[in-house]
Amino acid sequence: MNPVKVGLLGLGTVGSGTANVLARNAGEISRRAGRGIIVTHAASRSLRSSINDTSGIKFTTDPQDVVDDPEISVVCELMGGYEPARALVLRAIANGKHVVTANKALIARHGNEIFALAREKGVMVAFEAAVGGGIPIIKAIREGLAGNRIEWLAGIINGTGNFILTEMRDKGRDFADVLAEAQALGYAEADPTFDVEGIDAAHKLTILASIAFGIPLQFDKVYTEGISRITREDVAYAEQLGYRIKHLGLARATPAGIELRVHPTLIPERRLIANVDGVMNAVLVKGDAVGPTLYYGAGAGAEPTGSAVVADLVDVVRTLTTDPNNRVPHLAFQPDALSSQPVLPVDEIVTAYYLRLRAADKPGVLADVTRIFAEAGISIESILQKEPPAGSPDATVIILTQRVRERQMNGAIARIEALDSITGAVTRIRLEHLNSN
Amino acid sequence: MNPVKVGLLGLGTVGSGTANVLARNAGEISRRAGRGIIVTHAASRSLRSSINDTSGIKFTTDPQDVVDDPEISVVCELMGGYEPARALVLRAIANGKHVVTANKALIARHGNEIFALAREKGVMVAFEAAVGGGIPIIKAIREGLAGNRIEWLAGIINGTGNFILTEMRDKGRDFADVLAEAQALGYAEADPTFDVEGIDAAHKLTILASIAFGIPLQFDKVYTEGISRITREDVAYAEQLGYRIKHLGLARATPAGIELRVHPTLIPERRLIANVDGVMNAVLVKGDAVGPTLYYGAGAGAEPTGSAVVADLVDVVRTLTTDPNNRVPHLAFQPDALSSQPVLPVDEIVTAYYLRLRAADKPGVLADVTRIFAEAGISIESILQKEPPAGSPDATVIILTQRVRERQMNGAIARIEALDSITGAVTRIRLEHLNSN
Repeated sequence: MNPVKVGLLGLGTVGSGTANVLARNAGEISRRAGRGIIVTHAASRSLRSSINDTSGIKFTTDPQDVVDDPEISVVCELMGGYEPARALVLRAIANGKHVVTANKALIARHGNEIFALAREKGVMVAFEAAVGGGIPIIKAIREGLAGNRIEWLAGIINGTGNFILTEMRDKGRDFADVLAEAQALGYAEADPTFDVEGIDAAHKLTILASIAFGIPLQFDKVYTEGISRITREDVAYAEQLGYRIKHLGLARATPAGIELRVHPTLIPERRLIANVDGVMNAVLVKGDAVGPTLYYGAGAGAEPTGSAVVADLVDVVRTLTTDPNNRVPHLAFQPDALSSQPVLPVDEIVTAYYLRLRAADKPGVLADVTRIFAEAGISIESILQKEPPAGSPDATVIILTQRVRERQMNGAIARIEALDSITGAVTRIRLEHLNSN
Repeated sequence: MNPVKVGLLGLGTVGSGTANVLARNAGEISRRAGRGIIVTHAASRSLRSSINDTSGIKFTTDPQDVVDDPEISVVCELMGGYEPARALVLRAIANGKHVVTANKALIARHGNEIFALAREKGVMVAFEAAVGGGIPIIKAIREGLAGNRIEWLAGIINGTGNFILTEMRDKGRDFADVLAEAQALGYAEADPTFDVEGIDAAHKLTILASIAFGIPLQFDKVYTEGISRITREDVAYAEQLGYRIKHLGLARATPAGIELRVHPTLIPERRLIANVDGVMNAVLVKGDAVGPTLYYGAGAGAEPTGSAVVADLVDVVRTLTTDPNNRVPHLAFQPDALSSQPVLPVDEIVTAYYLRLRAADKPGVLADVTRIFAEAGISIESILQKEPPAGSPDATVIILTQRVRERQMNGAIARIEALDSITGAVTRIRLEHLNSN
C-alpha cells in the first residue's frame, strides 16, 4: 500500500524532531500502522531545519503551498502561536486534510471552532503533543479513563518552570538567577513570560480540563499566577515543613462548579509528583473508579514532542487504512510483521549485582574475592564490610558490581563459594540503574 | 440509539466492580461513548456477587448461556485462569461477539490463538485490564508510544509483592511475617505462589514485551524468580547503599535478543519507580524518541480493574457506533453532550494555604493573628516561628492552614496586614495535599 504523505508546517525544534523520528523509525512505524508515513512537503520561513535526511522533501517558504497540495493527506501544524496557525489549520481542514498539531495555544483558544469544522468536513484533528510533550496524557484521559467520573487532576505541565523551582530548591538559589541560567541553557525563552507566568500551563490545563470533565474549552476562565514571586526563603521553609513548591495546573469538579487554576503550590514531599524534577512533566489524575493515576515523562524537546506527533499520525493512518475492528493490532504490530528476535536464556542477560557473603574476619579474604572478580573481568562498584556480631567469627561483606553477563557472574560466585574463608552460599540480587542505558 | 448489551463471565471482585462502575457512571459513559452500555447477563458458579443494583441482569450458573445468547454484543471474561476461560472466549468469538478480558494468564498463554480467531471472525478482543489494573498501560505503549523504538521497560506489576517488600522495608519485618498479614488483610491469596513467586508478573511481562517489541507471546521463555528468599537484612543493606529492592518485570531489547525476566531488583532510591509503595503498580518505559515515561496507579482491586474493563468497552462501543473519523470525540465527550458546569471565579475555590508574615517579636502578636483566623472560621494546621535575625526587630512566622474558601482567606489576610505588629504584606501560597479528597 502507498505510504501516507505528510506535510509539515514549521521546521523548528518540533518539526525537525518529528521528521527525524519518522525517518529513523520508519520500519517500526509501518509495522505498527500497517502502512508507511513519509514527509513529502515542509514549509518554514527560513527553510533552516535540523532534519537529518532531507531527501524526498519539497521545501517552501509559503505554508499555503503545503495546505493546498492535493498530494498531502495529513498536515502537521508545528509552528505554534495563534496566527497564522489558525487560518492554515482551518484551510487544511476545508481542503479535506487531516490535521495533527502540537499547538496548545491554538487548541486552547480556537479548538471549539477547529473541531466544529473538522466534524463538518469529516476529517480528523489530533493534538496529543499539545500537552505534556511525549506523555500520552490526552489518550490516557480521553480513552484510558473513559469509565471514570474524573474528580480532579493536577499537573506539572511546564518544564521551564519546574526546572527553575527544582534549581531553587536544590541549590538555594534565587528565581532571577536561575531564570538567567535557564535562558543561557536554552530551557527558557528570551521572553519567559509564557512559561514563568503560567500562560503556557493555562493553555494546557484548559485542554486537560475539557477532556476530563466534558466542558467546552474556556481558556479565559483559567486563574493564572506565575512563579516569579517565589523566594528561596519560601522554598526552604516549605522544605522544613515537609513540602515542595511546584507550579501546578489544577482542575477540580466541585458541586458548585469547576476550579481551573495555575499557581505555585506546596505539595507533601512524599507524593510521587512532588519528586518530579527538572524539565520533566507529570500529570496526576484522580478518577472515581481507578483512584489516583500518574503519567510522567519529558514535557518538551524535539523528539519527545515528535513522539507524540508521530503517535497521532499512526492513529490517523490506522483509521484510514485498516478495518475498524482491527484498527490497533492486538500486539501493537501488524500480525504479519511480528519480529523473530529470540528471547535470551537467563545466563545471557547483562545486569549489575548486589552480593552478600559471610567471610572469615581475617586478612587476605577480600584480596581473594577481588582477585576472582578481576580475573573474571567484573568491575566492582563498591564494597561494604560489616564487623562480625559478638560471638560470630564471620563478617558480612556487601559488594555492588558493574554490569556483566550473568554467566560470568555465576562462574565468579562458584569460585568465591569454594574459598575456605567463605561460609555458606553467596546471596545474589540483580541491580538495575534504570537510567537511560 | 439502543444501548450495547454486555454479558459478564465471573462475578467476583472484578466482575462486580465492572458492573458497579458501568451502573454508577452510566451517564458519563454514554456521553463519552455516544451510546449506553448495560450489563444484561451474568454467569458465575455461586451467583453471589457484590453488584449494588442487580435489576435488569439475567443471572445464570452456566457461562455458555451468556456466550451463546444472541442478544449480547460483548462478552466480558472476568473469571481468570486458563480453562474454562479459553474455551468460553473462543466460543464467544466464534459466535461473532466482541470480547473484553482482564485475564493475563489467558492472554499470556493463549493470546496468539485467541487473536488469530478474532481476526478471522472480524471481532474485537481487548485486554487493558490484564496488566497494571486501572493504569492504561497497554494503550500507552500500543498507541501512545507508537512512534518509538522501545528500548526497555521495567514494571512493578504485582501489588501483593510490592506490598510485602514495602512493609519489610518500612517496618524491618521478615518476609513470612508480612505475607501472613497480607493474607489476613486479603491482599494475598491463601496460596500466594502466583504472586510471590512471580508467575503473575511473568504473565503480565509477557504481554508488555510483545506489544513493546512486536514479538509473539512467549510466556514459557520468561525467567522468573520470586521474592520469598529476600531477607530483611538485604533490604536494610540495600537501603544503606541508597537502593530499594523491588520485584520488577524487565524486558530489554539487545542486539543479541530480548531479555525477559522477573526477579527482585535493587533500584537507586532517587528513581521515581523506587518510590512506588504498597499495593500500587507502575511501569517505566524507555522509548528512543520520548525517553523515559512512567505510568502509575492501582494495579488491582474491584473498581480500578473495572475502570480498565469499562475503558475497553467504551473503545469497542465507539468503534461499533461512530464514524471512524470521529471515533474518539475531540474533547472526550460527544459534542452534543458537553457539560454546562460553570467555571468558578478564583475567590470561590477551596484550598489550604501556606502563609509567611513578618511580625514584631513581642507577646500577643500570635494571639492577635490566631484570633483573626478563629473569627474567620479558618483552622490552623501548624505554626512555625523563626527568631529575628540579628539587628532585625521582626520574627518570621509561617502558618499552614486547613482548606478554606479563598474569599475567607483573603478577608483574614487583609485584617492581619492591618495589625500594627505586622510588617509589610503577607506572603500567601496555596497548598494541596493531593490525596484522595
